[in-house]
Amino acid sequence: MGREKAVDFFFEPKGIGLIGASANPLKGGHFILKNLMAGFQGNIYPVNPEHGEINGLKCYPSILEVPDPIDFAIIFVPAEPTLKVTAECAERGLPGVMVQCAGFAEVGGKGKALEKELQRIGRKSGMRIWGPNCMGLVDAVKRYVFSFVSPAIWDDGLVPGKVSFIVQSGMLSAGFLIDIMSHGAMGISKACSIGNKVDVDESDLLQYLINDPDTGTVGLYLESMNDGKRFLDLCRRSSKPIVVLQGGKSERGAQAALSHTASVAGDRSIIRGALAQAGVVEAGDFIQLMDLSRTLAAFPGTSFLGNGRIALLTYSGAAGIVSSDFLDQHGLLLADLSDGTKQKLKDVFPEWMPVSNPVDLWPAMERNGAMRVWDKAFRAVCADPSVDAVFFHLFVGGLAGTPDISPLAEIARKAGKPIFAWILGKRKEAHTFQLQCRDLGVPIFREIGRAVECMAAVFRKNA
Amino acid sequence: MGREKAVDFFFEPKGIGLIGASANPLKGGHFILKNLMAGFQGNIYPVNPEHGEINGLKCYPSILEVPDPIDFAIIFVPAEPTLKVTAECAERGLPGVMVQCAGFAEVGGKGKALEKELQRIGRKSGMRIWGPNCMGLVDAVKRYVFSFVSPAIWDDGLVPGKVSFIVQSGMLSAGFLIDIMSHGAMGISKACSIGNKVDVDESDLLQYLINDPDTGTVGLYLESMNDGKRFLDLCRRSSKPIVVLQGGKSERGAQAALSHTASVAGDRSIIRGALAQAGVVEAGDFIQLMDLSRTLAAFPGTSFLGNGRIALLTYSGAAGIVSSDFLDQHGLLLADLSDGTKQKLKDVFPEWMPVSNPVDLWPAMERNGAMRVWDKAFRAVCADPSVDAVFFHLFVGGLAGTPDISPLAEIARKAGKPIFAWILGKRKEAHTFQLQCRDLGVPIFREIGRAVECMAAVFRKNA
Repeated sequence: MGREKAVDFFFEPKGIGLIGASANPLKGGHFILKNLMAGFQGNIYPVNPEHGEINGLKCYPSILEVPDPIDFAIIFVPAEPTLKVTAECAERGLPGVMVQCAGFAEVGGKGKALEKELQRIGRKSGMRIWGPNCMGLVDAVKRYVFSFVSPAIWDDGLVPGKVSFIVQSGMLSAGFLIDIMSHGAMGISKACSIGNKVDVDESDLLQYLINDPDTGTVGLYLESMNDGKRFLDLCRRSSKPIVVLQGGKSERGAQAALSHTASVAGDRSIIRGALAQAGVVEAGDFIQLMDLSRTLAAFPGTSFLGNGRIALLTYSGAAGIVSSDFLDQHGLLLADLSDGTKQKLKDVFPEWMPVSNPVDLWPAMERNGAMRVWDKAFRAVCADPSVDAVFFHLFVGGLAGTPDISPLAEIARKAGKPIFAWILGKRKEAHTFQLQCRDLGVPIFREIGRAVECMAAVFRKNA
Repeated sequence: MGREKAVDFFFEPKGIGLIGASANPLKGGHFILKNLMAGFQGNIYPVNPEHGEINGLKCYPSILEVPDPIDFAIIFVPAEPTLKVTAECAERGLPGVMVQCAGFAEVGGKGKALEKELQRIGRKSGMRIWGPNCMGLVDAVKRYVFSFVSPAIWDDGLVPGKVSFIVQSGMLSAGFLIDIMSHGAMGISKACSIGNKVDVDESDLLQYLINDPDTGTVGLYLESMNDGKRFLDLCRRSSKPIVVLQGGKSERGAQAALSHTASVAGDRSIIRGALAQAGVVEAGDFIQLMDLSRTLAAFPGTSFLGNGRIALLTYSGAAGIVSSDFLDQHGLLLADLSDGTKQKLKDVFPEWMPVSNPVDLWPAMERNGAMRVWDKAFRAVCADPSVDAVFFHLFVGGLAGTPDISPLAEIARKAGKPIFAWILGKRKEAHTFQLQCRDLGVPIFREIGRAVECMAAVFRKNA
């Protein structure tokens, strides 16, 4: 069975062919070349009968003419000629091709027939086919961009991280990557855009990523599953958190999915139940998928104690109250602080103020300065055996500017307790602070509800 | 009954006393003075027996010594001396005072007794008391900042808008205002921080705002209601949308509310049901409160037809699908586009591509350019009687840069159809685009789910 053959070579190639390499700097076939040359350290073999050379690289008339070993070819020609060049790749004995161009089953009619034929070529030869109708692969750790995504993706740096994505969407995978990198929201390991999944599918890639040392959490956007049983088995056996956003849960959404990636979904409510049983975290929206994934990746392993008893450190009574409401809604608990912790906090509190959780640190900060109180409070709650995690609220860009919270993160890290930040503040300073949190591995949020939702996912995974 | 007396003078004063004016530029009593002088055009009378003058203004030893008419005094001295100066204001016959200092019922014990006495002074004299333990009032339209909030609030400009807030939180009202202004999220009419509500309460202010021509929508964060019946009556009679975030819905949240503003809430589930019946939109989180309020304020009046039949214009199949799922979840409908609309869109679509809703404009944009296709699509769906509103998706900061959507907004405005934007893109360009949308009155979102939730609120209000 070709479908069970490993897909590792797509992630660790030494040589890549590019069929449809273009000399026109506005074309996708040129973007792919530029992206390959920007990060990939292996050999690149542009294929285009119209050129002898592009961007200083020798260009071949056909993949059959390339003399050196190639792991796979990226194909970016129109749908019809794709069949011929794919057959040539099979003839040459390539392990795989990555077909990025569109015009297959998603356009209906003739496209469906073309896709069937593409699939037949793969099955007959045993060559793996990734795509068609996809954006390919981005690996921010290795700095590989095997995709016709705009080279603008490099502008803000490709920040490496522990989250890998598998996305059944082209435009959006590219759009989100550029958005995430530009906003500095999170680091990424791999982003795989899988398109119409004629062969390589979510299970093949998930299997690879579960064993990938660079991946801590896998987030998926799926409109269908090629093999639900295999996918669920993989999820069940995975020690890494998996987050799934299913598109087409509603009838009209499912209709739209049919015309998007020609996906026919099964009964969504059954699938949702099975995913939950397999330990998968469900997301409903794209940024939520990112938020859940980056939060789960921040706390690898299963070392967290307890049931999610949260110490809430705030500067605002109202924020503490609304946070308490969300904790309750998500089945988390406000920690009952130990007497020792209360005593330590009393040292910096005004005498009229009782210590309770949520801990309103504002009056203490007014008297003793923000960082001294933060340090005291973090040490106390992180040492408290009745506290499983810390949710702290900060206002940045005020009188205290943009605080350096690395000492606080270090206290929590040593205590083995996850911490979560909610911030308000001035735009520029909030961005700087968010980047600091990203680099420290501290999940940070602008909405209390989202923060608590992500917290709850951590404790479900690690209880 | 003093409690029913109008509170208009707080919003439209000609002269304001400031008891506790400070010459120390780091103190709240100085912040208030600076904020008053930065925007308020009326007379300001600092009161502080230790100074003859502050910042060029004559300073009086007591409110009793001020010879001119005063509408109200802001009091910013510690809790105990507050009683004496409040009594002097009553003696002088002031219509009201705004007590911003803390140290009353929220600190328990002696503070409770002080608050009772403060209340007694007000009731006896008929003088209205706003506060204590509050941040006062900000009016971005009139440029009044009657508050000890940091003068940093002026740094990013006070952007005027149609949303007024009533917030039972000090820190947070200030923090949110600075955050909102710095992020350029929305314009504001009035923000009222009401604190412990010894007299002036949410109903007094709501009554004023319902009649205020500068206010289109009122958003409230409440931990309690002084008079639930009066509040519900006002909501029921209001033609302006009202959004309420209740703090302390859970048991632990309610406990925290008790220590925050000494609020004792009734049965929350009963209150929630009654609010919904009175036409109030419920929010669960702070930024959600802002999002719902700014969206409802963008479409005043009740002129929208239909049941929320949405035309979905996107560049991404996946985003269209997830949007469809959210529409379904919130009881909105994907519009069945008329044949005429489909025909118009066919002109710019590739021939292989059928026109359906969600409308994926990407292939058409590749052929005809983004703005030509947008213009065509907006004209078609806005003219379609089977479309009640438009939800459009944009990627900003890509090849098309930051598009000018004012022509599209104008098409929709003329057709009387609300439009909603969801964007991804590069941080800088996304911010510029968001400011453009704010100024055009187009609600814009970074999460699809939130966008659809706000859309649903518009159609509930206007069905």
